Amino acid sequence: MKKSVLKKYAYLIAKVGANVQKGQYVELTVDVNQEVLADYIVEACYKLGARMVKVRWTSDKVEKTTYKKAKLDALCEFPEYEKARQEYLNEKLPCMIYIESSDPDALNGVDVAKYTEVRRSNMKIIKPYRNLRENKYQWIIAGAASPAWAKKVFPGVPTKKAVNMLWDAILKTSRCDDDPIKAWDEHNKDLKKRFEYLNSLNLDYLHYESKNGTNFKVWMNPLCNWLGGGETGQDSGIYYNPNIPSEEVFTSPLAGKAEGIVFSTKPLSFQGQLIEHFSIRFENGKVVEVHAEKGQESLEEMVHMDEGAAMLGECALVPFESPINETGLLFYNTLYDENAVCHLALGHGFTNLIKGYEKYTQEELFKMGVNDSNLHVDFMIGSRDLNITGYTKDGKKVAIFKNGTWAF
Amino acid sequence: MKKSVLKKYAYLIAKVGANVQKGQYVELTVDVNQEVLADYIVEACYKLGARMVKVRWTSDKVEKTTYKKAKLDALCEFPEYEKARQEYLNEKLPCMIYIESSDPDALNGVDVAKYTEVRRSNMKIIKPYRNLRENKYQWIIAGAASPAWAKKVFPGVPTKKAVNMLWDAILKTSRCDDDPIKAWDEHNKDLKKRFEYLNSLNLDYLHYESKNGTNFKVWMNPLCNWLGGGETGQDSGIYYNPNIPSEEVFTSPLAGKAEGIVFSTKPLSFQGQLIEHFSIRFENGKVVEVHAEKGQESLEEMVHMDEGAAMLGECALVPFESPINETGLLFYNTLYDENAVCHLALGHGFTNLIKGYEKYTQEELFKMGVNDSNLHVDFMIGSRDLNITGYTKDGKKVAIFKNGTWAF
Repeated sequence: MKKSVLKKYAYLIAKVGANVQKGQYVELTVDVNQEVLADYIVEACYKLGARMVKVRWTSDKVEKTTYKKAKLDALCEFPEYEKARQEYLNEKLPCMIYIESSDPDALNGVDVAKYTEVRRSNMKIIKPYRNLRENKYQWIIAGAASPAWAKKVFPGVPTKKAVNMLWDAILKTSRCDDDPIKAWDEHNKDLKKRFEYLNSLNLDYLHYESKNGTNFKVWMNPLCNWLGGGETGQDSGIYYNPNIPSEEVFTSPLAGKAEGIVFSTKPLSFQGQLIEHFSIRFENGKVVEVHAEKGQESLEEMVHMDEGAAMLGECALVPFESPINETGLLFYNTLYDENAVCHLALGHGFTNLIKGYEKYTQEELFKMGVNDSNLHVDFMIGSRDLNITGYTKDGKKVAIFKNGTWAF
Repeated sequence: MKKSVLKKYAYLIAKVGANVQKGQYVELTVDVNQEVLADYIVEACYKLGARMVKVRWTSDKVEKTTYKKAKLDALCEFPEYEKARQEYLNEKLPCMIYIESSDPDALNGVDVAKYTEVRRSNMKIIKPYRNLRENKYQWIIAGAASPAWAKKVFPGVPTKKAVNMLWDAILKTSRCDDDPIKAWDEHNKDLKKRFEYLNSLNLDYLHYESKNGTNFKVWMNPLCNWLGGGETGQDSGIYYNPNIPSEEVFTSPLAGKAEGIVFSTKPLSFQGQLIEHFSIRFENGKVVEVHAEKGQESLEEMVHMDEGAAMLGECALVPFESPINETGLLFYNTLYDENAVCHLALGHGFTNLIKGYEKYTQEELFKMGVNDSNLHVDFMIGSRDLNITGYTKDGKKVAIFKNGTWAF
């Protein structure tokens, strides 16, 4: 990839994504295979006035070896200095930039139950700290093409070419064109029109139907807004874009009120394991049955991670002809695939969707019907024939999606 | 480099170098460009029974950008969680494995005074913690070929070939042959004979002479031993090899007693800057004058880093025909170049050379004449015509080095 293009992408991430402000701290989490991009992002953050940018490097290779070789109790150790770091994050509220470039099969061969147990154990400690900073800091997830991921997306293509092709797809779907700042401004305006209309409807529930078998109802949280594109940091008032790309208009539904069955329309990469061709059935808002042609064990671990993992935290609407879906690619990465078509998410909901959320603690917000969990996993259910009908509080029926795309 | 060879090297580092024991913690510091080797080392440590291996990734690229762009006061911040980590290190005493692969010019362009000030500021905080764990944990420094370093060692050679050539040199000088364990065992026995003889002499001072202008006397610390090759951890009693390769027999001379001038015979890479063709003159044990054809500023910053930086912490004897010198290469890296020929080190001395050091605190040991500093920089003074004459406490004259090599 050309240096000038990578630099432009790095600046897009720092400026439009994190919107780094003068004097702010930044933490960048990125794989060791992305040193050049990481360096450009660090430089872009300083250009925007960052006080200190720290890089937290990750390595799928070493992570896999660690999970395979270390004992469970060693993996679950959470030293005091890591707790001190959580306090530091709450004090400094650094912008968090996450760059995803993992091979979707990176952790293949790792004991799923062991991995899940470690995450559960760590999250139990991190969660109370994170609740204190939730919604207050800027964050952004964006992608970067690694050889292993590129070969998964373009099987049979020589590595170097596949990496370039994946970069092209990433840059295109991220609107990293001649003037990315302007493109994102216009895109955010369009998403705003959509979610403002949905907010005006006063929806009671949505009914999803597709010939693939999906027949599913989910109830809206009357206290929750729909949102899309950029968000605004609590207290700071800083506008940032937590996902690049982002095509979705979404809300957090009422935890514990959903009925019926949904069928996946894209594979899901969860903790480095692929889950394919699956269905999830809900009763009284909770998952009661899952079936996967591949990755059944991972899917079961997922929905049993904690109480909230079996309930929905998000309903997101994305037209079937989205720029990402139009690439015709399966990215095996949620950031892209979730923005290709309509999806739902199990687990953690978004407390900042509650109207006037600034006035409440995280605990209070969860009590208002936003689902609480250490998990948040999006899975895709959008198809070309998906119809979604809205039923409003005052008994009206409104077409939301018709044949896979916006009906309004 | 072939996988099987890299794996053998990784095992040599973990087994002969760190000598990782069952249940031990390990921290591996390594550049992001060495992911494959890092993964093999992690695996080797677990094979030896490590409880947890943590990797601390470094990146010269990002370090350079950070030092260029961040403000001095931001760079000097030392958050509480980093202090908590120092306490963790003192509690767990993890084995520390350091892999060096840096471009010797990596930090070219960085403000030397700024860099030194940051190091000084950080070391001031770290030092008291480190004093508490000094000599108690196993540690090892070894090398790995990176493209930038290889191109420096083999200018004009295509990158891939240069990397392979540097790997060959690293593996050869590290005795990573058919049976590295046996080779290191024999090598350590040979070094032991040498330092035991030197210890038996009861030396008062050494006199260095060479036609290049070196004419220099340095006084021995009567409480200090000579040592070479492996060392033994205090309390643990675990034998480990802190340098791979290692060819030197060395001691810490009496701080503050040295006279005369020494001329460098190899360039020195200090904090990512090259210092070449330099001389250092001592009076009353302290540096009073330095001259460098290249890197004068770096050399001056170095000797003024703190009080102990202007005094000697180490005298090391290495024959001119050492395996490293015989490669004919200049590595631009102290680990290799210091083990090519005789050298001295400014700064920090080795308190574990004091006979019965286990019975004293670090502070007490420094008062016994071992130099104390946050700096420890080796510089090479060995030449083909170097003569070193020892003068014993009882007035005898003993030839130690004759024409660049052992006289006994």
